[in-house]
Amino acid sequence: MKVEIITIGDELLIGQVIDTNSTWIANQLTRHGFEVVAISSVGDCSENIINAIDIAFERADILLITGGVGPTNDDITKHTLCNYFHTALELNEDVLQNIESILSKRNLQLNKLTYNQAYVPASSNVIQNSEGTAPILWFEKEDKILVSMPGVPYEMQTSMDKDVIPMLVKRFQVTEYVSRSCIVTGVTESELASKLADFELLLPSGYSLAYLPSLGYIRLRLSVWGHEHLDELKQQMRNLKKTVKAHYVSKGCKLPEELLSEKLQNKNLTLSTAESCTGGHIAHKITVVPNASKYYIGSIVSYANSVKEQLLNVDKNTIELHGVVSNEVVEQMVINVSKTLNTNCSIAVSGYMGPDGGQKDQPVGTVWIATKYNDEILSQKHHLGLNREYNIERTANLAILQLIKMVGK
Amino acid sequence: MKVEIITIGDELLIGQVIDTNSTWIANQLTRHGFEVVAISSVGDCSENIINAIDIAFERADILLITGGVGPTNDDITKHTLCNYFHTALELNEDVLQNIESILSKRNLQLNKLTYNQAYVPASSNVIQNSEGTAPILWFEKEDKILVSMPGVPYEMQTSMDKDVIPMLVKRFQVTEYVSRSCIVTGVTESELASKLADFELLLPSGYSLAYLPSLGYIRLRLSVWGHEHLDELKQQMRNLKKTVKAHYVSKGCKLPEELLSEKLQNKNLTLSTAESCTGGHIAHKITVVPNASKYYIGSIVSYANSVKEQLLNVDKNTIELHGVVSNEVVEQMVINVSKTLNTNCSIAVSGYMGPDGGQKDQPVGTVWIATKYNDEILSQKHHLGLNREYNIERTANLAILQLIKMVGK
Repeated sequence: MKVEIITIGDELLIGQVIDTNSTWIANQLTRHGFEVVAISSVGDCSENIINAIDIAFERADILLITGGVGPTNDDITKHTLCNYFHTALELNEDVLQNIESILSKRNLQLNKLTYNQAYVPASSNVIQNSEGTAPILWFEKEDKILVSMPGVPYEMQTSMDKDVIPMLVKRFQVTEYVSRSCIVTGVTESELASKLADFELLLPSGYSLAYLPSLGYIRLRLSVWGHEHLDELKQQMRNLKKTVKAHYVSKGCKLPEELLSEKLQNKNLTLSTAESCTGGHIAHKITVVPNASKYYIGSIVSYANSVKEQLLNVDKNTIELHGVVSNEVVEQMVINVSKTLNTNCSIAVSGYMGPDGGQKDQPVGTVWIATKYNDEILSQKHHLGLNREYNIERTANLAILQLIKMVGK
Repeated sequence: MKVEIITIGDELLIGQVIDTNSTWIANQLTRHGFEVVAISSVGDCSENIINAIDIAFERADILLITGGVGPTNDDITKHTLCNYFHTALELNEDVLQNIESILSKRNLQLNKLTYNQAYVPASSNVIQNSEGTAPILWFEKEDKILVSMPGVPYEMQTSMDKDVIPMLVKRFQVTEYVSRSCIVTGVTESELASKLADFELLLPSGYSLAYLPSLGYIRLRLSVWGHEHLDELKQQMRNLKKTVKAHYVSKGCKLPEELLSEKLQNKNLTLSTAESCTGGHIAHKITVVPNASKYYIGSIVSYANSVKEQLLNVDKNTIELHGVVSNEVVEQMVINVSKTLNTNCSIAVSGYMGPDGGQKDQPVGTVWIATKYNDEILSQKHHLGLNREYNIERTANLAILQLIKMVGK
């Protein structure tokens, strides 16, 4: 069953907001066997919204729309849908009750703008929004379905999980999309493709292998439509693993920090971090994973050199002799943070992230990463690029992957 | 001049990768006076790409495409464009030279897949990619322009900055889009809309006011086409500021952490942080801003209570008496981190981010934020939601905004 996603809002077209809603929806629908054929974004303009709906219904059977349903004047989706489906707004008492209940939980008063959100298109089926004041609207026209949802991510996600996906799954029999992914690191995309050239040639028809480069690693995804291919798919993944050899980190779609979480919990290990150039980003990645408190103790973000000396006991002479971005400094950091915070594992990084800074023989992009697992210490130098944000993200991923490989052995 | 952006890749349609390219391109084009009318994403399927191009040329004059130009077999954009423009691939010596130069800088060998990237459609004008091996292709057909770029963000961004945008600007006279934005906090979207109802009614025609909620604050954007309206626009923004009063934080499009960076540097202040529940995210936000080392000293990420006692000297009895999520604990944290790291300003947070945890009278979403500016300390309690990732992001934004308001007074 073919689906198109339309996200609505001027903020998307002027590049003020990244459209994460369509990614989330696409991910969920794919898992449930629906095929997303296109994603479109248009502005808060009735004519353009209607045009986008017409285009979408040419290539898809189900159309999921987010955005433009807030209480303010720039939100015009509901009125546009009334025009499109030749219907009019009418007060829906259930929606009004839901709005009042949500506002009272937050100690807020009903005002005129929020009251107006209880007016819904007469020909739509209404799904209550348990997280917000804008209802979800389900329209049908011949064999096509259109569902309008709020653009606020957690409101949309809750409605999708609770109502929209179950309703779609119940309604349609869908061919399942099966895929398996894995993470590889320490290899460029074209080197990897050369290594996998024969593997790709030998794949049965219907399979596709995708290369999804992230900062610091590449995710490979092998996929095929139809659940009956699952065993064969798993066998192909084993062949793939043998082919990429030492570059292979782990199977699955998990993020590096989620993989690390699993490995640390399985082995009952604890972790601390000492971050210079990544400024807390490694700690953040680790603590976004639920239950991080089971293994993660804390971080010393030693952005200034004084903090490296004061809280991490890095020797001042070592910094002067070898520079702050050096094997010697990250080794002291990784040893001392695990000693101070009493952990089995630790990560330490020091580097020049740019855009300014760096030394003559250590330009922007130079970074040292040390990881410690019990008594074993590994320290590696990397040469990254010039973009500060990418360098921080890449360093954090490389550091987490380095520890995963150490602990996973 | 109307523009559409098309991003290509199965990874977008199965929701494995967030499309940040189109946001970046839309932002840049808008600043240069182009009007982005739609953004579309389609998969690595020739028929769907051609269909999307046809649709785009119905509503736009310029079409910017990213993705599907890598060296691997799943990248089919170049071949599809050959079909679309009825042309064939031919070896381009300049592209080959560029590829060889890029590979040699990275100590990599030319392989067959990378060599094939030097074959380009005969009817296209080639722009060299200074950051990667896939060339940028510029096609013209009647009065329409299509530019194909790599999907790797920094390659695309560098080409856009250096070549594509200057070429587009030189070619077209464009009406400038003028807009002004500001940040407000401590108010819901519908409360804000009620406050601004009269202001919106009195706006001259052609103006639009957009509400862009982020986690912890709302950005308001007032916009109009045509540079001649700039003075009037500025006056309207002054009226808006008066209307939203105490909720107003700052003008501009900057992120909270960028605003904080400006304020601290202007006043020659230094900053440290003590993070419990945000696990390094505040430090990360602060250090993503270039030159953060000028004012930011470091952070103690005290994820475990032991670290609060050991490195932040939080009194064990206070934790037992008031709980770790309390006014008393964050005040000790904010005072002691600024003492230990010797800074004028500091931020401390402690809370329950979920999905598990919390106490009977302090459910998931409860967070205390303390900020210190010289001898002044402010401590505030917030009730957030149930989503861990949003809670971390919202807490980080609220904490940074709280300090901005303190320092900016």
